[in-house]
Amino acid sequence: MLLLIPGPVSTRPEVRAALAQDFAPWDTSFRPLYAAVRERVGVLAGAVAGTHAVLPLQGCGHFGIEAAIRSLVPASGKLLIPMTGSYAQRMARLARECGRTVSELPASDVRPVDPAEVARALANDAKPTHVGLVYSETSSGIVHDVAAIGEIVRAAGKRMIVDAVSAFGALPLDLAAQPEIDAAVFTANKCLEGVAGLAFIIARTDSLRAARGSAQSWSLDLDDIHEHAIRDGWGSFRFTPPAQVLAAFRTALHLHRAEGGQPARYARYRDNADVLYNGMQQIGLTPYLTRAAQGPIVVNIHAPDDEKWSLQGFVEALKRRGFVISNFYNTDRPSFRVGCIGAITPDDMRRFVGAAASALDEMGVRRRAPAA
Amino acid sequence: MLLLIPGPVSTRPEVRAALAQDFAPWDTSFRPLYAAVRERVGVLAGAVAGTHAVLPLQGCGHFGIEAAIRSLVPASGKLLIPMTGSYAQRMARLARECGRTVSELPASDVRPVDPAEVARALANDAKPTHVGLVYSETSSGIVHDVAAIGEIVRAAGKRMIVDAVSAFGALPLDLAAQPEIDAAVFTANKCLEGVAGLAFIIARTDSLRAARGSAQSWSLDLDDIHEHAIRDGWGSFRFTPPAQVLAAFRTALHLHRAEGGQPARYARYRDNADVLYNGMQQIGLTPYLTRAAQGPIVVNIHAPDDEKWSLQGFVEALKRRGFVISNFYNTDRPSFRVGCIGAITPDDMRRFVGAAASALDEMGVRRRAPAA
Repeated sequence: MLLLIPGPVSTRPEVRAALAQDFAPWDTSFRPLYAAVRERVGVLAGAVAGTHAVLPLQGCGHFGIEAAIRSLVPASGKLLIPMTGSYAQRMARLARECGRTVSELPASDVRPVDPAEVARALANDAKPTHVGLVYSETSSGIVHDVAAIGEIVRAAGKRMIVDAVSAFGALPLDLAAQPEIDAAVFTANKCLEGVAGLAFIIARTDSLRAARGSAQSWSLDLDDIHEHAIRDGWGSFRFTPPAQVLAAFRTALHLHRAEGGQPARYARYRDNADVLYNGMQQIGLTPYLTRAAQGPIVVNIHAPDDEKWSLQGFVEALKRRGFVISNFYNTDRPSFRVGCIGAITPDDMRRFVGAAASALDEMGVRRRAPAA
Repeated sequence: MLLLIPGPVSTRPEVRAALAQDFAPWDTSFRPLYAAVRERVGVLAGAVAGTHAVLPLQGCGHFGIEAAIRSLVPASGKLLIPMTGSYAQRMARLARECGRTVSELPASDVRPVDPAEVARALANDAKPTHVGLVYSETSSGIVHDVAAIGEIVRAAGKRMIVDAVSAFGALPLDLAAQPEIDAAVFTANKCLEGVAGLAFIIARTDSLRAARGSAQSWSLDLDDIHEHAIRDGWGSFRFTPPAQVLAAFRTALHLHRAEGGQPARYARYRDNADVLYNGMQQIGLTPYLTRAAQGPIVVNIHAPDDEKWSLQGFVEALKRRGFVISNFYNTDRPSFRVGCIGAITPDDMRRFVGAAASALDEMGVRRRAPAA
């Protein structure tokens, strides 16, 4: 059974094999593993020693987003969020529930955020101290231009928090070149192809220090996690970490490097997405986005306008054919979502296209004639 | 290598084997697994359908404690915490950092909390709305009397939050008989012998409802987790769960049941602790607690008063002999800590006693003559 969802992804057997050992997290044998993981993700993000800290957080990406907002946006701050889709909505909710003021910048779910709109919003309202951006909006599949929007943010003298959960490892990120980024948040189980259970936040230590005391949550206080990391020299977890998940993540990072790092991972996912995009058109379905707007992480396909269509029925028919896709809608207009990330290849995508056609035929859902 | 630490524990190979599969958390094939886990832990805790909700939280036990405090103790409330050791201190810090008022009740780290002292504290100060109690204080190894203290709390018309992290699965808990308990918090990776990455809170739904809006954290809002569970009928996670950890936990719960459930788990750990306690005396070392105060989860042993003693040296010597123990002190006077929980038996403990004697001899640390 192949998972074609935007995380948790299908992993390679080597990654799952690395789960099979018990560890004592504070043991000296375990700490080098942890240090190696932190160092490697720091390199991948362009983190600068002394400027950035790689901070782990047990749990999931949302916890990492909340931790970044709590630890970096003071209570008097304001977060401007381009509303790119459901993950931007979630960021806004995470911020509001911990008492931060949020300004929502309307955005489309079929085209990327225009950096000029961010510039206008910041020109019209001086209050936002931070911009919160979802790099790869998982609900639509659109990749937003972190570098260009970051330039606007930098020019306006503001700070930025990047939700890189569905992006990091496949899409480029260079924190050294983007000093306006206070924090980038990601997890082990998306484009880095580890298993779920662990989030990371790479944060600027000067910004953490400046906002010290803002978190109002010990569990989610990145400054405290950082202090703990400095104190013992190794950067151990404060509380029990998911040891097996961390061990598997080390293996996943080795495989990422062996594949050729971020550029190679990007290229494979891009191929996956292209095969899928073209294939869906060839079997008479319509992708949600134009080709220009389509990112390499997730492809959404308009739900067929046919009374015999049902998402759950389609999901079940695909499972009988060896594929799992998301069983809920996540876009303005109903579309089914197919993840292009994880230990999957263009060949898997070709098989999926065949399975989708066969599933629709079985359901009796009409498809358009193949594109010319 | 056997882990003799109070979590994450040594697990059985069947549990680790269950990690080796990828899952889509929202898939219908996965949800029954999740429902079965929640049902089983509810039964183990004496939870009452309609009265209690079994709520999962990605991460670790501390996150669960903070979530329970946030979601059940309103900002106007006050938490009375018997200061049983470092886990009580952590509960106090978690509460204070989220803005709750804490009253610390001094307690010893060599004898259990006297319920009469809790009664006196509640009689002298009407303000506490909740009592926060660590069931098994991992730093000392003392088990506190949740039933007797609960009776005091109930008689005083107060509510209770129980940190059952190092207790649940081995020590009895009957929420049906203790309506004063608003929440009991535990994790998969202690006495239930799963792997780390997942906390659970069993909470009273009426109390959650009464405190609705208190959490001020979406990530840690148990009322929202509960709403989500009700909404879809299956109780799925709101955010990506550690799928493999959950699958392994199901296997761990099967093994727990096959062993004979909580009474059998308690009996094995009690045997482990007794063999260890007696064995340490036999090799001329002194347990931290009297036999009467010694719980079955963790045994602390006074650090030998010898210039050749070093905890790290001892830890390394034990590792060469196949055992991992904690490499830090956690009691008022220095003591090394040995966990009696996990997939370990009295025979393992006998081997450990031999290894400890041999390690001390290798280090040249003098031991008293064996007890008569």
